[in-house]
Amino acid sequence: MKCFIKYPKYCDFPIENLPYGVFSTVNDPVPKIGVAIGDQILNLNVIAHLFQGPQLRDKQHVFQEGTLNSFMGLGLPAWKEARETIQKLLSENVPLLKDDAVLRERAFVSQEDAIMHLPAKIGDYTDFYSSIHHATNVGMMFRDKNNALTPNWKYLPVGYHGRASSVVISGTPIHRPHGQTLVIEGAPPVFGPCKLMDFELEMAFFVGGSNNLGEPLSITDAHEHIFGFVIMNDWSARDIQKWEYIPLGPFTAKNVGTSISPWVVTTLALEPFIVDNYPQDPEPFPYLKHDDKFNFDINLQVDITPKDSIIPTTICRSNFKYLYWTAKQQLVHHTITGCNVNPGDLMGSGTISGDASDSFGSLLELSWKGTKPITLNDGTKRKFLQDGDTITMKGFCEGNGYNVGFGECVGKLLPAKILQF
Amino acid sequence: MKCFIKYPKYCDFPIENLPYGVFSTVNDPVPKIGVAIGDQILNLNVIAHLFQGPQLRDKQHVFQEGTLNSFMGLGLPAWKEARETIQKLLSENVPLLKDDAVLRERAFVSQEDAIMHLPAKIGDYTDFYSSIHHATNVGMMFRDKNNALTPNWKYLPVGYHGRASSVVISGTPIHRPHGQTLVIEGAPPVFGPCKLMDFELEMAFFVGGSNNLGEPLSITDAHEHIFGFVIMNDWSARDIQKWEYIPLGPFTAKNVGTSISPWVVTTLALEPFIVDNYPQDPEPFPYLKHDDKFNFDINLQVDITPKDSIIPTTICRSNFKYLYWTAKQQLVHHTITGCNVNPGDLMGSGTISGDASDSFGSLLELSWKGTKPITLNDGTKRKFLQDGDTITMKGFCEGNGYNVGFGECVGKLLPAKILQF
Repeated sequence: MKCFIKYPKYCDFPIENLPYGVFSTVNDPVPKIGVAIGDQILNLNVIAHLFQGPQLRDKQHVFQEGTLNSFMGLGLPAWKEARETIQKLLSENVPLLKDDAVLRERAFVSQEDAIMHLPAKIGDYTDFYSSIHHATNVGMMFRDKNNALTPNWKYLPVGYHGRASSVVISGTPIHRPHGQTLVIEGAPPVFGPCKLMDFELEMAFFVGGSNNLGEPLSITDAHEHIFGFVIMNDWSARDIQKWEYIPLGPFTAKNVGTSISPWVVTTLALEPFIVDNYPQDPEPFPYLKHDDKFNFDINLQVDITPKDSIIPTTICRSNFKYLYWTAKQQLVHHTITGCNVNPGDLMGSGTISGDASDSFGSLLELSWKGTKPITLNDGTKRKFLQDGDTITMKGFCEGNGYNVGFGECVGKLLPAKILQF
Repeated sequence: MKCFIKYPKYCDFPIENLPYGVFSTVNDPVPKIGVAIGDQILNLNVIAHLFQGPQLRDKQHVFQEGTLNSFMGLGLPAWKEARETIQKLLSENVPLLKDDAVLRERAFVSQEDAIMHLPAKIGDYTDFYSSIHHATNVGMMFRDKNNALTPNWKYLPVGYHGRASSVVISGTPIHRPHGQTLVIEGAPPVFGPCKLMDFELEMAFFVGGSNNLGEPLSITDAHEHIFGFVIMNDWSARDIQKWEYIPLGPFTAKNVGTSISPWVVTTLALEPFIVDNYPQDPEPFPYLKHDDKFNFDINLQVDITPKDSIIPTTICRSNFKYLYWTAKQQLVHHTITGCNVNPGDLMGSGTISGDASDSFGSLLELSWKGTKPITLNDGTKRKFLQDGDTITMKGFCEGNGYNVGFGECVGKLLPAKILQF
């Protein structure tokens, strides 16, 4: 498969990837759907008329909208056809687009010139807690060292409803939040800027298709409802969370903002990177049990770049494959009591930590609750985030002679604002 | 203030009320915005051109949409002007609408003929836990009898993000859900239909206006972002919740469905029923402290009607005024770490229990965890809900010679479906 757009061999966005995103430019500020190829974007709005397969020829309008929701709603056969069509259109030996100079001129935009937007209108956002290493680490720190995992953890993918409105696109800065924290056990809480600001390395999938309220999805075909994945930074105010989360879970500690990478890498593009599911013991209930593999070998990395510095330090290398619960299991559990999901819903994996101490997906774990500060390349140390720190998350799959990459999820922590009451 | 539409003196929807809703009819299935008056609906779509005040004359389109989101987004001055305009148009001594037979014929629809829809596209839904009696009752049952309230409870309005997609309009039946429960402590959980299905008597407010991410709302003008209130039934699968909720809060036990009444009673209509705020000790942090009254005397009632019966039993009489935290405090706390809210966001109060045992807002409390079954008028007993039970919630404010009512929030519990894996 050779593409007429040229790109370096191991770039994130070869013809084997073709992730979807929503972009605009200074000259055309109306958001459009595009596909990343090399350092270019193929503007699907401009070539919508070329989707002539049986699934899409009557639905070309989905490529002319400002979000991916409608396309996500079409389902797996349409996603497959779209991928095949785009791969063909980009092929070196297919003249249709390649040799049409006028259309080519209109159909490609340099990623450098693009402003990226959220890929979908996120109706609902859910965050899971599916890394056994992360849940064990946190359980050891905050609860019982000998029973770090709560009794339910291996029976169901623990998760909670998050805040959809505060999900933002990569590049959006986040202000250090104010909130209540308990500084001295037994004393009254205090109010002020968060002192223990953290990132969480996650991935998240966008739901495709939908189900009616009261009709749970089946594990057998759950993969048909998983459109694709992004990298996610679930910014977390640890001290605020600790004070607020009992008994109803994390609330204002999490709705500070949640950043996602702009390019949705489809499940179809991830197929070559499928690996064994994480071994599960005890065996899950039948509604959660599946033998087909739905785990992916995705290398993940977190860099921290201090204020006014250009030198990043890689502080974590992890992998999506460490997750105990699969995305299929997360989605099906989400609907088991009848919850309806919709195209564009976002579901986070939870922090992805491996078992090695340099694979932990948060500063909380990397610095072990602040007891083991980590040293950056510029010599400064971190227990938690400092004002001006930029967090850059990256991910890629290593193919045979090519990569399938996710691009970056970037966010800078700005100082707390001054509040007036 | 006399209305040319006739209605009984103590009906829910006199000219002093004027709640907004979204309706359609068999003959006109496209949802329209309307205002309830007596047993009629004033179709704002038809009379949009009559909003000629400075706030609305250029924004009449908000009344021609299929949800209230845009109108909610306009803010308090526009809401005031709309209310004044509608009151005037409905006045006995204003001929504009009253004496225009053709327009009147088009502008009114009988509530009997209307199909009600969700009043807004709910971007995000949050549920608080702000009744001190409810939180104390639940704390005594499930946690520590002597420290029933968690340490944070009196310092901040505890809340959690809920599932917006599963909020449904009154009348929508709910299926008894399946899920995991822990029957024997220490043994593995079991999977099957929920055995402890419950309702929760709540009210909820719709957000008006918005704020940017990173810019908390101020307590001083928070009321300008509270458009109006509905009655809410937060269906709860108690046994599923108990097993799943540690450590990240309620999840599938709540996304079974959440029912709301169709008519949004505006904060403006509730002004005559303002009462003292609930006394708060300790004094709240400055960001939560307000001296202006923002508590309302709203009588609430829950009826249960068994399957195949027409005899309801009133099992709870409560009042909105029992809430410890005000809606202003809930909203401001929600945004304190920077969370952005949007027009149409829904925020639930939490179960509203008073201190008397017949004012408890859930069967969990009324039957005290099943230890004190309540007897219905047909002689049957209830610890928790039985298949076929219909829950009807009502609310009204008692004015001087009139009521301001909320109508009903109704839902029937259907048997569990048979699931196939």
